[in-house]
Parts: sequence; C-alpha cells; structure tokens
Amino acid sequence: MLAYKSLHVYIMPDPIQQWKSIGVVGAGSMGSMMTFAFAELGLDVSVWDVDGRNVDKVMNLIKTSKEQFKGTITGYKTIDEFVRSLDGGRRRLFMFSITHGKPADEVLGRIKKDLKKGDVILDGGNEYYRRTERRQEELRPLGVNWIGMGVSGGYQSARRGPSLSPGGDRQAIEQVLPLLELYAAKDKKSGKPCVTYIGPGGAGHYVKMCHNGIEGGMLSAICEAWVIMHQGLGMGYDEIGDAFTQWSKSGELRNTFLLDIGADICHRRKTARGVGRGEGVDPAGGYVLDDVLDKVVQDDDDTEGTPLWAIMETASRHVSAPTLAAAHYLRIASGNRNQRLRVTKKLDIHGCRPFQMRDKKTFIETLRRAVYAAILASYCQGLELIARASKQEKWDVDLGKCIQIWRAGCIIQSEAIADMLQPVLLQDVQIMNIKLIDEVSRDLHGSYEALKEVVLKCTEMDACVPALSASLEYIKYEGSTSLPTQFMEAEMDYFGAHAYWKAGQPGEDPGLVKKGPHHYEWKPA
Amino acid sequence: MLAYKSLHVYIMPDPIQQWKSIGVVGAGSMGSMMTFAFAELGLDVSVWDVDGRNVDKVMNLIKTSKEQFKGTITGYKTIDEFVRSLDGGRRRLFMFSITHGKPADEVLGRIKKDLKKGDVILDGGNEYYRRTERRQEELRPLGVNWIGMGVSGGYQSARRGPSLSPGGDRQAIEQVLPLLELYAAKDKKSGKPCVTYIGPGGAGHYVKMCHNGIEGGMLSAICEAWVIMHQGLGMGYDEIGDAFTQWSKSGELRNTFLLDIGADICHRRKTARGVGRGEGVDPAGGYVLDDVLDKVVQDDDDTEGTPLWAIMETASRHVSAPTLAAAHYLRIASGNRNQRLRVTKKLDIHGCRPFQMRDKKTFIETLRRAVYAAILASYCQGLELIARASKQEKWDVDLGKCIQIWRAGCIIQSEAIADMLQPVLLQDVQIMNIKLIDEVSRDLHGSYEALKEVVLKCTEMDACVPALSASLEYIKYEGSTSLPTQFMEAEMDYFGAHAYWKAGQPGEDPGLVKKGPHHYEWKPA
Repeated sequence: MLAYKSLHVYIMPDPIQQWKSIGVVGAGSMGSMMTFAFAELGLDVSVWDVDGRNVDKVMNLIKTSKEQFKGTITGYKTIDEFVRSLDGGRRRLFMFSITHGKPADEVLGRIKKDLKKGDVILDGGNEYYRRTERRQEELRPLGVNWIGMGVSGGYQSARRGPSLSPGGDRQAIEQVLPLLELYAAKDKKSGKPCVTYIGPGGAGHYVKMCHNGIEGGMLSAICEAWVIMHQGLGMGYDEIGDAFTQWSKSGELRNTFLLDIGADICHRRKTARGVGRGEGVDPAGGYVLDDVLDKVVQDDDDTEGTPLWAIMETASRHVSAPTLAAAHYLRIASGNRNQRLRVTKKLDIHGCRPFQMRDKKTFIETLRRAVYAAILASYCQGLELIARASKQEKWDVDLGKCIQIWRAGCIIQSEAIADMLQPVLLQDVQIMNIKLIDEVSRDLHGSYEALKEVVLKCTEMDACVPALSASLEYIKYEGSTSLPTQFMEAEMDYFGAHAYWKAGQPGEDPGLVKKGPHHYEWKPA
Repeated sequence: MLAYKSLHVYIMPDPIQQWKSIGVVGAGSMGSMMTFAFAELGLDVSVWDVDGRNVDKVMNLIKTSKEQFKGTITGYKTIDEFVRSLDGGRRRLFMFSITHGKPADEVLGRIKKDLKKGDVILDGGNEYYRRTERRQEELRPLGVNWIGMGVSGGYQSARRGPSLSPGGDRQAIEQVLPLLELYAAKDKKSGKPCVTYIGPGGAGHYVKMCHNGIEGGMLSAICEAWVIMHQGLGMGYDEIGDAFTQWSKSGELRNTFLLDIGADICHRRKTARGVGRGEGVDPAGGYVLDDVLDKVVQDDDDTEGTPLWAIMETASRHVSAPTLAAAHYLRIASGNRNQRLRVTKKLDIHGCRPFQMRDKKTFIETLRRAVYAAILASYCQGLELIARASKQEKWDVDLGKCIQIWRAGCIIQSEAIADMLQPVLLQDVQIMNIKLIDEVSRDLHGSYEALKEVVLKCTEMDACVPALSASLEYIKYEGSTSLPTQFMEAEMDYFGAHAYWKAGQPGEDPGLVKKGPHHYEWKPA
C-alpha cells in the first residue's frame, strides 16, 4: 500500500520551468531589484521602463556587477518589442512595478491589445484597491488575470526576498504561488515563505495598504522616541543606536526591523569617500543622519498613496485609528518646511527642553514600553481595518496568515508581536476587535503606565509626541465605560434630534449600534 | 443728474412673487421645518416623503399648531401628484431634504422625467460633494440646475433661519439667492443674511462638510471639558452649566452656540410630565443628561456622512487635521458600547480620578483657554481644508464669506472667533495656512500653556482628552523647526530610497515640497 501510494505523490511542476520568463514593467528602485531576483531564480527577464535611462541603468548594473544570474536579463525601450519578447507559446507573466493610478493605467492601455487568454499580470505597486478591482473587471473578458500584489520590504527585500500579499482570482494566484514562494522572504523560524493567497478582488493591495498604515504608526512612535532620547535625554546618536539594538534584542520588541535599521542609522558616520554619488562624504566624519532634513514629502506629492488611503479607509469604514492618523498628520505637517518655518516664528512655542532625568536608564526602559504600546496600538488599528474591510467586502482574509507573511521581508516585521498574535489569529480569523485578545489587552494594560509616564514628561518638557499621546488616549477611551461622548450625544440630540439610548435601561445599555429611540425636545423649533 | 440716476434704480423682484411655490422632498426633522418656514415666508409649499406617515405628521402638526402661515402647505403621498402640483407655467423650485447617496439618487430618478428646463433643485441634505457634481452633470443637458446647498443649524434653525452654503451654477444660485436671503439666519450685528454663493460644482456641500468637521472638533473639546469638570473637578451639572454660560459671555469664546446649548443641557431637569412622548419624565426630578448614554452611532450606521468625509478629505488633500480626526475616532469608539464594555474589562485601565485641585476657579479659567485653543485649532484645520480644496478644484471660495455665513444659524457659530477671522480673511481670501494670520498665531501662542497644563493634569489623572491632547501636539509640530520626522525620513530613505533634502544646505533647506535629491545607500541590496 505504501508503495502504491508513493506512486501517486503529486509532483509540483518546477515553477521556473512552468513560466520560463517574466516581463518586468518599470525599472525603478523596486523593479530593477525584482529583475535581478527573478533572473537569479532562473527566469529569463525582459524589462521595460517608460524612461529608457532606467533601462540603461539596469543593464549597466549587470555589466559592473560580479553576480551571476541563472536566467537572462534583456532591457527594452519599446514596449511592443518588450511584450513580443515574452512570446513562447505559453502563458505570459508580467510584474508591474510602476506608480499607481494613471501611469499604471496608461501602460496597461498600451499592452492591452497584445494580452492573451491566460496571461497573468502581477501588480506589485502600491495601488488603491478599488482601481485594482476595476482593472480586474476590465481584463476578465479577455481571460487575463490582474493580481493586485503588495510587495513589502523596500528595495533590499525586492532583491533578496520581500513579503508578498497577492489578491485576486484564487486559481490564477495558486498557479503563480509556487514561483512567488521561491521569491518571497522566508520566515527564519519555520522556513515558510512570506506569501499567501490573501483574498479575491483588491484584498491583496488592501492588506498592503494596512501594512503601510501600521508602518506609519511604528515609524512615528520610533522617531518620537529618537527625539525624546536626543533632545530630551541629551543622548548621542551612538547611545541611541545602542538603545534601539537593546530593545530589539529581547522582550516585547524583539527583532523589530525598524529598530534594527534605526540602530544602523544612528551609528552611521560620513567618510572621506562616502558611499558613491557624493553621499555621506565628509573627511571630518560626523553622522549621516545630520544631513537629513526633517521633511517627509511623499504624501504631499502624491507618490506614496498607501498611508493616506489607510486613513481614508479608517474613516469610511468607521475604525478608530488615532495612532495611524496622528503619525500621518505629523508627516504631512513636516513636508512644507518653508511654511512651517514661517508659522514657527509666529507661534513662538519653545521646542523640547532637556528632561534632566536623574535615572536615565529607568526612563529609557519606560520609553521602550511606551513605544511598544504605540506599536501594538498601531497593529490593533491596522488589523481591525483589515478585519472590517474583509467582512464588508466578503474577502474572508485570514489575519493569522497576514501575520505569517509579515514575519520576514517586510517593514513592520516584529518577531515578538508575530509570536504573540499569530497563534491566536490563526484560531480566530473572524475577530473584529484585536483588543479582545487576552495577550493584547494584557500588554496594553501592562504598558499603560509607562506610556502615561512618557507622555506626561514629554508634555511637561514640550517634546513632540503625537503618535505616543494619541495611543495613550486610544487605550483610555477604548477601555472606558463613561466617555465624554455622553455630553456630545446630548448636544447632538439638542440641535439635530439625533436621538439617544438610555443609560442603565435594560435592552438599551449597552444596546445596538444604531440610532436610539429617545429624543428629548430640549428646545422646540 | 441725481433725479435721472434715481430713475434707474434696479428694482429686485419680490422673491416670493418670483417663485410663488416650492416643492419640499422629505418631511423628516429638517424637511418639515423647512416646509413651515417657506410657508411662513409666503410660498405655497408642496411636501412629499417616501414614507407617507411623515407627510401625515406634518399635516397634523399644522392642524394642532397655533401658527398662521402666509402660504399654503399641501402634503402628497404620490410623487407624480407632488410634482404636478408645482406646475404653474413657471420655473419650479425644489428643496431636497433626504438622506445622501442612494435615497437622493432614487428620488431624482423618479422625478427626472418630469423636470423641465429652468427648474432648480436645492439639495439641502448633507451630500458628498462628488455625488453633487455627478448630479449637476447629469441634469445639465436638461437645463435643470442642481444646487448642492449646506443647511446648518439643526431643525430649530431649519425652522427659524439656518446658515446656507449653496454651490453650483452661479447664475442659477443668484436667481434663487434673494429667496434664500429671506430664509437664512441673520447676523445679529450687521443684519446680513447667512447665505452667499460659495462656488461652482460641489463647493457648497464641501464647505458644509468642513463646517461639520469643525463642529466635530468643537463638540469633542467641549465634551472633554465637561468630563474634566464633572469627573475630575467633581462639579455638579448646574455648576458646569454656569461655567459654560460664563465662557460664552465674554472673551475668546464669546457667544459660542455649542456652549450656550451645553449650558442649557446641564441645567435641564426631568419633570413629572416631561416634554411629551414620554421623554424627560421623572417625578423625582434628576437631570435629563443622566438619561443619555455615551454612544454616538451616527457614523457607524452611515447616516451622518460629513464628519467621516471630512477626515477622508484631509487625508486625500494632505491637510493636517489631528483635532478633527481625534474627535472623530472618539465618536467611532463610543458607538459600539457593547464591545467597549468587553474591552474595558480586559484592558482594566482605571478611569478619570478626582483632580483634588486647590484652586478650582483658576483651573476652570485655564480649561476655558485650553478649550479655546482646541476650537481655534479645529477652525484652522477646517478652513485649511476648504482653502486646499478650493485651490485644487479652482472653486475660488472666499473664506471670509464662509465666516460671514457661520455668524448665525449654524452649529459652529462663535462670535469672538468670527470677529477675529472675518476681517482678515475677507482681505486675504487666498491664504492657505490659517496659522499665518497674526491674530490666530497670537491666540494659539497665548493659550498654549493653558492647553499644556490641562493635558498634563488630565494625563496624570487618566481623564480622556483625545481632541485636547491632539490639539496640543498639533500646535507643537506646526511650530517646530526640528521635528521627529528627521529620523523617519532617514528610515524611509534606508529601506525605500525615499531620498532626502540636506539640512542647512542653501536651496535645499527649507526647499521645495517634492522628493529630495539625496539617497544615501545605507544598506546595498
């Protein structure tokens, strides 16, 4: 029987043999790295970019690189040639890595006439999920599958293995999954690839958008901690870097990617030769970080997309996400530095003052726990947004699998948080409120006092901590039975006849999430 | 010459004679009040509602009312009869007062076939401005004007004179403006009607949406103050009501509508007979406010619209609006009380503790200034959103006129703020950053320490103050030359090659709001 069974072992086709080639559209920082990665896996890669100079750059990089690729890489400057190069009597595979919105539509428009039944297009850009769904609808009659796929981890991961969240037609994704599993980052613990079928329609891009929302919250919490240590505690960059390394070594923030690279940044010094293209050059040394201006402009110039879409989605789907929003508004405010300098002169608010702590070491540990609280709050808000969208759109997204694919390759990876959340979420994929998870509420409770102490000190010393303080308020109101909104509800009933539910009334308190049955005529019209 | 000139005085037609009748679609709390108001002005009003019982209610109200109307009121239960009743050989005027989105589309679909060239439809509901613009496009070929008009002030104002913000075809709006001027609230100081042509397209509904965003921030600041006084300072409702009255009497919050009705709410007691329909009944007395549960559900059930659209718009147009968002997320969190009670048990965070202030009176004055700071921040955020949208959409909205129409009739009216903002904004209608106004920055500066003191105390005592603390952080980062985002930008350059601008470099600092020229290769792929 055993022998008989073994004859029927299903042999997966070699994904490289299955596809043989891939067409990469876009040769920017992400697309060029994907090109190399796919060639390394053994695919013959055709690459095209609307800007021929980007194609030249890729081809020059190959010439100067010592790396050997199993597959070929061919650059194209005309899109028709590019598409024809993929013809080989089989289904073709494309990877889009270009700017969302119009650019993606334009390129699709140019190749649409040449698309054939069975072709698969992976859109690896950050696209708004509704546009992904529109393109899926547009291509369905042609038998062409458009897969909206989040690619997380930046250009280093795009080269060495990113975290991938494909969404769209299940069958098409399953056909391309073996290849994506080869490409994706591998979880160090289990060896599992950081890719899974997320769900139909725009689910994949949606999950990536929420990932980036969480990323925004984490980035803010960490950069606020950096300001506290630098401006408040007077710590040098190296000392701060050591603290970040320590935080990431063990405990609730174990193996947190943004802390690891943060430590790296803190230690990085300029040199006489720099790192090429004239960056990081200073014979006198000094820190590279000191070169960096405090403005983040990717939202203002509309290239970023995901963080602002995440905020829009929290509003439209009624998910409370103050940490993500506070982080985002800080970024927005940072962008227009010119205007900010003018406002600063007029507002004349003194900036962060020295904390003069007697026990700096203890405060740094308190700060670590405060940062953890804000990061955990960010995870709650992002995951709850996925859960809400998944329910409303009937996507059936498995939150546990989201955590699984965020274990490596991506920006928000944090081993300790994944270890805590993944087992619970794999068991309860339908949970809508992450704070109902015992481990999460235990940790939010456990870090509340630390977060409070940090916000108190920063408020006293005028340090700027929008994400930390928003997280503190979030924990307070999510865990309160008597909110200020009692008075808000009364005011809205006064002028708007909004109608309320009665406190303490059986059947009404806590009652349903719908308009109440009582309107008191505070002031007749 | 004088005599000659006087012969040429342009005589405006009597707006009542001009239109004679109006058809009100929707007989809910707003539509029924508009019906009475128009009849009082002398128009013959036809009123229809998809729910015949609402029509009955209106007609019954007339019977039992002692009021005499100059015009007639006729209720209709079939929409065709309703439309025919307006035929009189002249252009017809409709006022929609129904739920945004589908309901409005459905009703429009039912009457569209009967619409004639020259007909004017005022949509007085809270509609998303893009849908308003879609309907304007849809009706343009028919020569029918769809005007998206914000109507603010709740049902009392709908009856006695609201604040109106019409947007759409300028000529059509100017034709209906004399009538709207009769109907609108009048500024007590100047006697001017609180209505003006806002701009083309969806500008009118957009301005109303921003008004409601500001309203959200104000509501939150005030209800947070209420919680501080009640739970923190241990003040009884009457004492709090007296404080609100005092705040509205003079100074920076002079004649603030939400404080006036807040005082009214605080003092209102239940009686043996109540106010009809069984509300406010208790022979033992007690406060009506105690009946009201702390959940605001109008966002969750999607009936409200404007506050969440405002947050979406701040994100999509890159306007920093943390006060409005913090207020909104608090509301959202309040809605699902059932879930909140479960989370509260698990989070186990103690609620607001008694402040035990020695000098309560001084602290109440500090609190007043803190509330003013949050309200002023709300105005900044809402007005900046209008300014940004107006520029991007080429609407040419006059912010000074927005303040003018918010002087009476509407929810956010605050005489002191209007007195401060209106003269400046009428001179500089193109200003994009409200904090650049001397008076505004002066007042934000002047109330910063008060806001800080309140947030400090509330953080210490675990009072829930999301909008107040978000406002404090807002003032801090809007007025800072060295933001935490320096570190965020470095992190984003590390993994995403986001590229930065160099600090202190001429031409780069402060520089443009676009992607920087420098990428440091922190970690080669």
